[in-house]
Amino acid sequence: MRNAVGRDIPEVYLKDGVEVYQGIYHRDQYEYQKAAQKVKAYVKPSANKVVADLAEAVRLCGLKDGMTVSFHHHFRDGDYVVNMVMDVIHDLGIRDITICASSLGTAHAPIVKYIEDGTVTGLSSSGVRGEIGDAISQGKLKNPAFIRSHGGRVRAIESGDIHIDVAFIGAPTSDFAGNARGKGGKSDCGVLSYAMVDARYADKVVVVTDTLVPFPNFPPSIEQVDVDYVVVVPEIGNPKKIANALLRFTTDPRELLIAEYATKALVNTPYFQDGFSFQTGGGGPSLAVTRFLKPYMMEKNIKMGFAIGGITKPMIDLLEEGLIGTIVDAQDFDLTSIASVNTHPRHFEISTSQYANPMNKGAFVNQLDFVILGALEVDLDYNVNVITGSDGVVRGAPGGHVDTAAGSKCSIIVAPLVRSRIPTIKDSVITVTTPGESVDIIVTEVGVAVNPRRQDLLDSLKNSGLPLMTIEELRDEAYKLAGKPQDIEFEDRVVALVEYRDGTLIDVIRKPKAVVLP
Amino acid sequence: MRNAVGRDIPEVYLKDGVEVYQGIYHRDQYEYQKAAQKVKAYVKPSANKVVADLAEAVRLCGLKDGMTVSFHHHFRDGDYVVNMVMDVIHDLGIRDITICASSLGTAHAPIVKYIEDGTVTGLSSSGVRGEIGDAISQGKLKNPAFIRSHGGRVRAIESGDIHIDVAFIGAPTSDFAGNARGKGGKSDCGVLSYAMVDARYADKVVVVTDTLVPFPNFPPSIEQVDVDYVVVVPEIGNPKKIANALLRFTTDPRELLIAEYATKALVNTPYFQDGFSFQTGGGGPSLAVTRFLKPYMMEKNIKMGFAIGGITKPMIDLLEEGLIGTIVDAQDFDLTSIASVNTHPRHFEISTSQYANPMNKGAFVNQLDFVILGALEVDLDYNVNVITGSDGVVRGAPGGHVDTAAGSKCSIIVAPLVRSRIPTIKDSVITVTTPGESVDIIVTEVGVAVNPRRQDLLDSLKNSGLPLMTIEELRDEAYKLAGKPQDIEFEDRVVALVEYRDGTLIDVIRKPKAVVLP
Repeated sequence: MRNAVGRDIPEVYLKDGVEVYQGIYHRDQYEYQKAAQKVKAYVKPSANKVVADLAEAVRLCGLKDGMTVSFHHHFRDGDYVVNMVMDVIHDLGIRDITICASSLGTAHAPIVKYIEDGTVTGLSSSGVRGEIGDAISQGKLKNPAFIRSHGGRVRAIESGDIHIDVAFIGAPTSDFAGNARGKGGKSDCGVLSYAMVDARYADKVVVVTDTLVPFPNFPPSIEQVDVDYVVVVPEIGNPKKIANALLRFTTDPRELLIAEYATKALVNTPYFQDGFSFQTGGGGPSLAVTRFLKPYMMEKNIKMGFAIGGITKPMIDLLEEGLIGTIVDAQDFDLTSIASVNTHPRHFEISTSQYANPMNKGAFVNQLDFVILGALEVDLDYNVNVITGSDGVVRGAPGGHVDTAAGSKCSIIVAPLVRSRIPTIKDSVITVTTPGESVDIIVTEVGVAVNPRRQDLLDSLKNSGLPLMTIEELRDEAYKLAGKPQDIEFEDRVVALVEYRDGTLIDVIRKPKAVVLP
Repeated sequence: MRNAVGRDIPEVYLKDGVEVYQGIYHRDQYEYQKAAQKVKAYVKPSANKVVADLAEAVRLCGLKDGMTVSFHHHFRDGDYVVNMVMDVIHDLGIRDITICASSLGTAHAPIVKYIEDGTVTGLSSSGVRGEIGDAISQGKLKNPAFIRSHGGRVRAIESGDIHIDVAFIGAPTSDFAGNARGKGGKSDCGVLSYAMVDARYADKVVVVTDTLVPFPNFPPSIEQVDVDYVVVVPEIGNPKKIANALLRFTTDPRELLIAEYATKALVNTPYFQDGFSFQTGGGGPSLAVTRFLKPYMMEKNIKMGFAIGGITKPMIDLLEEGLIGTIVDAQDFDLTSIASVNTHPRHFEISTSQYANPMNKGAFVNQLDFVILGALEVDLDYNVNVITGSDGVVRGAPGGHVDTAAGSKCSIIVAPLVRSRIPTIKDSVITVTTPGESVDIIVTEVGVAVNPRRQDLLDSLKNSGLPLMTIEELRDEAYKLAGKPQDIEFEDRVVALVEYRDGTLIDVIRKPKAVVLP
């Protein structure tokens, strides 16, 4: 069945109420019953929840073949928890497990062998980078993987579309009752926003920590009332890979030009006024935008009301200079933001439900004025692909891309016109992750295109001095530089389903005929 | 059917899985599916939730005959919200409403007329003091009222035994998206612990505030993701009655003697060691115990690990002197504690689920060493009554009594031997609210009785110098002073069900033959 971005969704995936994507607000005011966990009551006093090891926790949780386990990715490339837990599950002979992760990255390459041997047969994740992405595109995973944005993952959990049997929550600190925090310890990650949701919806919750602290560990990100067991292990992560002390400030003239254009576009919209709100990713041009904004804010005496999202040092700098009112934080990308959250009086941890669930009673993304986002590909309908590479292999992550694009008043995509001699702007993206309906401005180093749906924005940029172009003109420039890209050939086999944040299917990813591995 | 404290529970109330009380740990490890709310998704951005008035909010919520609405009692005797909302519901002609309140007090006397005219036909509350208690005992409420402890109320909500259709949450401050706090504004109440549970389980949530503040109002007690509408009214409460700046420090020699004995009992148990935990009520003798503890703590260099519960100035004093590690707070009784919570770095707001729900994965009461509690009556089985007066009329409130007694290692009841010439210690209490199995020490001004189940405590008090007596000896002394009380005569009509915290029925309250109104 053809959906609203023109993608064909095989009927086989449209059962149990699953619909094709029908527009970004299709499910506004949709009524549903939330999911809830099964609980075993701890009526007796003084229950110390610390158990001997992960294997004991897995046994006590009653983890069985076919169940779903969850993980968060706040430790990023330094995460040890996923592999540690999956080793135990494998060694106990448990099979047919679905992993519901907020994201999976290069740290999790060892999971590929469990995909190959049938320990893992299902995946739900935002990112599936590196070897796991290759394995998925090679068709090694038994069931199609679900690609879900951060908000979409929370929606799926809170609505019961995915039910977590056991959540394994790596936590920098915990007490014996399971009050766990993202702060402190030896593997400090700042916040536990993804895991806050898992803790409330999983039947069983296991906190995995390397730093047991005195009771009560307050204020907790994960509350003892939601935790069944606590496991103390030597190390939950590699602190050096969790966050970098030094951020890459781009010096690439092309990236700086893109950032300059994006900033100029932003400040020329009517939303650039005192109290505006803002999110940006962690890429070079995005970080540069945050820095470039400052002189405009100073000049016009404009302060940012709040910033959300993945947080980085440039944002903390603005907060400390009094140029941001409040930061609400669902992920920390560096040591500066880890140190600031829950310490600076206006820098707060939020759950990813507060951050981006499209189907609760109003997430923070709904209040966003601006978001600056990257793209692997953009097409003539302004659809964006952030999940498949130019070879059709899964290697990206929608993250909060889809959610912030839809929630914000003005979404700005920053991308080079071509990358490694491959056009970024093209007739049609390989995979639609973010529908053009939610994408407002495309900024490249060559020109800036405004979505024709947003005539209002086009009008406000007319005298900005920006090199305004149509998306077709940008595409033509890209093709002129790098040639028209050849279509990737795919087999019929669907290896992943791309779920829009509201639970509808926006695209499917098929197995490329030739998977070229790095 | 006879229950474990010997009370006869009519079969008519034992349906849909409701059981009679069978011991304080009867439901330990009990597995159940948690309840969840129905949600209408706010997918579209920038939804401002402020509506014109309460009537509009009630209409938008679809409130209909037969539904259940909820309220919290953090504004105590100064609350305006319950009456304001019920006036609107009445004026809209809506009938047969069940009120699920955390407590109802003298401020809510106007509700009696809605009980009489059928607007309100059901009640679930901890306290039902004053005119509402009289109305219940007179049989004016159509259905039996449910008396639930603070933990029991949360359990009932979280398990689905009671489903809240619309929660009305009075909040000292809120932003337009519904992020609401117990702090700030003109009707500051410190915390919103009771309402935190309602917000997560009610289908519709209406925040009622008199102080709209800029977005985002952080950190929120009530999160925007759970709120449907915000109503701004001129006043949500009378600040003078919400909390008293001046606490009553008892000078009554009898109360001081009771406090002295209770303190001496406490410090002579093995649990009085560095890091001990403690809760006490707000009554004269209880507050005095907190003060009397200090010299013992100083002398032995013992610090309190954490204190929980309703918080008062003497506790804040200890916190500020460094004698308490952490306070976790579900209710504030005075201006000092309101000012301290979420401001002092070790004084935190918790939900009443974290505080006392017996059927989550372990509430704070489960970690308590000591609790000091009052009583209207105590019987030879150490059963305590805190709900019916000596005339059989409902006029008390179990509050956290039942929960802390069961959760703590040592529960100490402080009560005068006789009150207004009526014995406190007697053969049998009129109503069992707190079963003797969870009551350890009874302290009166005449003597101290230790529950024979706690031979260990009796041993540790043997050389304390306390006037140890049996409960029978205390009863005899009481009868000697005031005479054996006459049995109250009741009609068959059951006016209230007393639910034990785990959802079993521990007693029923019948209509007294003669209700003597004040």
